[in-house]
Amino acid sequence: MTQLEDAGNNRITEAMEQAAAHEGLDPETIRAGVAAGEIVIPKNIGRSFDARGIGKGLLTKVNANIGTSPSHANMDEELEKLDASVAAGADAVMDLSTGGDLDGIMKAVIDRSPVMIGTVPIYKAVSRVLTEGRQCAEVTEDEIFDEIEHQAKIGVDFITVHCGITRASVAVLRECHRLMGMVSRGGSLMAEWIVRNKAENPLYERYDRLLEIARAYDVTLSLGDGLRPGTIFDAHDRAQMMEMIILGELAQRARAAGVQVMIEGPGHVPLSRIAADMILQKRICGGAPYYVLGPLPTDIAAGHDHIAGAIGGAIAAAAGADFLCYVTPAEHLGLPTVADVHDGVIASKIAAHIGDLEKKIASAWDRDRTMTTARAAFDWETMFAMSVDPQKARMVKGRGGNDKPDVCTMCGDFCALKTHARAFDNNNK
Amino acid sequence: MTQLEDAGNNRITEAMEQAAAHEGLDPETIRAGVAAGEIVIPKNIGRSFDARGIGKGLLTKVNANIGTSPSHANMDEELEKLDASVAAGADAVMDLSTGGDLDGIMKAVIDRSPVMIGTVPIYKAVSRVLTEGRQCAEVTEDEIFDEIEHQAKIGVDFITVHCGITRASVAVLRECHRLMGMVSRGGSLMAEWIVRNKAENPLYERYDRLLEIARAYDVTLSLGDGLRPGTIFDAHDRAQMMEMIILGELAQRARAAGVQVMIEGPGHVPLSRIAADMILQKRICGGAPYYVLGPLPTDIAAGHDHIAGAIGGAIAAAAGADFLCYVTPAEHLGLPTVADVHDGVIASKIAAHIGDLEKKIASAWDRDRTMTTARAAFDWETMFAMSVDPQKARMVKGRGGNDKPDVCTMCGDFCALKTHARAFDNNNK
Repeated sequence: MTQLEDAGNNRITEAMEQAAAHEGLDPETIRAGVAAGEIVIPKNIGRSFDARGIGKGLLTKVNANIGTSPSHANMDEELEKLDASVAAGADAVMDLSTGGDLDGIMKAVIDRSPVMIGTVPIYKAVSRVLTEGRQCAEVTEDEIFDEIEHQAKIGVDFITVHCGITRASVAVLRECHRLMGMVSRGGSLMAEWIVRNKAENPLYERYDRLLEIARAYDVTLSLGDGLRPGTIFDAHDRAQMMEMIILGELAQRARAAGVQVMIEGPGHVPLSRIAADMILQKRICGGAPYYVLGPLPTDIAAGHDHIAGAIGGAIAAAAGADFLCYVTPAEHLGLPTVADVHDGVIASKIAAHIGDLEKKIASAWDRDRTMTTARAAFDWETMFAMSVDPQKARMVKGRGGNDKPDVCTMCGDFCALKTHARAFDNNNK
Repeated sequence: MTQLEDAGNNRITEAMEQAAAHEGLDPETIRAGVAAGEIVIPKNIGRSFDARGIGKGLLTKVNANIGTSPSHANMDEELEKLDASVAAGADAVMDLSTGGDLDGIMKAVIDRSPVMIGTVPIYKAVSRVLTEGRQCAEVTEDEIFDEIEHQAKIGVDFITVHCGITRASVAVLRECHRLMGMVSRGGSLMAEWIVRNKAENPLYERYDRLLEIARAYDVTLSLGDGLRPGTIFDAHDRAQMMEMIILGELAQRARAAGVQVMIEGPGHVPLSRIAADMILQKRICGGAPYYVLGPLPTDIAAGHDHIAGAIGGAIAAAAGADFLCYVTPAEHLGLPTVADVHDGVIASKIAAHIGDLEKKIASAWDRDRTMTTARAAFDWETMFAMSVDPQKARMVKGRGGNDKPDVCTMCGDFCALKTHARAFDNNNK
């Protein structure tokens, strides 16, 4: 039984209880959301960890992408990135490795992770083909599904599958004359497969086979946006919207088959269109949770794209995005370091939290209130504890020496709060 | 003659020509904006540098605050911060020093700076009083105005003056029961002065004396928001709005006296109210340029407040803010280091640029387009040049080794752009 099937049968599972406890909500609220397809709880039947929900009415969740590349493959470093992600507050980690011992790394990540793990199975299927000296597009339908089933068996909680790259959406793409073509690795591989083999995407044509595997292991499908814009100039063209329509149809079929499903979104989007994108996805995809990458409201922030991503992410979350995929300072330039992973998660956590304030989530407002009252009372320990990055906050505060521990080195005796207190103490009332 | 008076007399000054050249606009556009009070060109008559405008239709400008504090005063370090600010793209720098040789530091900053310099004269007036063993509130009206005139004489281009802290606005504040009281250093000093001396704020009561000095040196007044909220819980209370109304009245009087004027704004503001704040300020203050600090849409980002500030700043700029005061990672914790200053400016530049895209400024869109076409063509040198931080972008790209210089270490042979090109090359059409 998947979480969705249990929810439909009015059964509250342990995972629903865990997700409810994490949010401070009633388990029935979670069950109802899962039953409606508006909440997913990505958790493979073979794994045991403290599950979290993603979707309507819940805290905005954050994912960190880790993984090797062909030019840089070091398992220990990826496990360090996993630890750094979790320590910084990531709710999910995707292992996107494409170099080294892919199976070994994936198993080690799953084994070590206290949070849900996602993958993009086509990476490993195609990597094996390349290792054998074949071309990407020579990967067979069976090789793709066998790899998906293998990853489901070893415990992956959610998988990105680019089912919306179809003959029809590829035909639309051809007419769009994009500046950046495709920027989705998995999506472009499926497009190449379709074009080279003059055949339909097996993940679309044999979608029922995919649903069968996902249902058997309760793997949540994350329907990939292979046609997401890679520049603000390409945002919301017919290709992107065509894929969203296909994903909406596939989401409906997944739910009907008892399979949990969420939708992936952009990408590079002008600021003023981010909210509209969120609203449209909810409508087109029947309220399925929305998992966005950024979005990035500009193309020029290379070296600091985590900041551009946080700007877009905050607006997206405020407008209903449920799950933010982080962007690191290394985006568009190279594989992130452990420090980049930390900074990327923190930036997304800030965005998610700002979104949660707008979503009127009580615990988010409580946190700002606790921070505020601590700040007004010069209670530094509580300020550190409430901060998005307690260790860094403590480091920065301590940096300037500590001769007047109540105030900080910014203002010292010019502290406005102290001046205000002097002005408005009882003698002056 | 001030820029405003010249503009009113249909004269195009050298500073207007410089400001126009910086924007790629006709000087007449700048003149008309200055004449209408919708653009200011902060430039003391005694200074010579490449002037820039702030206001309607122009690129969103960024200010970096530097300056010593009583517990950390090193002139060389502040000059390093000045250089780092300018190198990162700051359009203005404020010297907010409150420790060490205040006059020496201010003169050195003015002498070295290729950009406009702002100050908060009350800091130095009160510092001197404290040095003499007197209380803050014992600073006299003459001491305040003498210090303002001194700073105008040595070349300060714009000054923050907390004229909106009046007996009336302080009375409103008392009834607001804020969580954070006042967080403006200069504002709280004026409030204390009013309360202790049971007298009106000289900067308000003797506003004409202020206008006379400002007019004589063409110092732009930056009307400070002493009642800006220091937590999202305090945003848009009656105290904040009362001060904005007073500042609107004073802006009108400044313009009538030929004095350039802009308005300072918050501060800590919930995300969904940032745009409304910008719209309201423009209405209340007769279109005067708006200079905002952040805004910060959450209180919990200590250690990474530059990111929270960039989120709020992007939305503010998109909604009409003209001038963003940066926030550094050290905000709420201590005096920023040189590295913090760099990171703060970069974060604000990203926010300003995203705002400029929304303001439909052609040069902003050109930059994203150039970046996009360079990215599609693997033209790394152009990508570095277009990036908000070329040096860092180059460093990150170079980090992973360079065996395949066209692609990066993130994807290597899995580069989606390459796959896309393979799929859609001519043989497959």
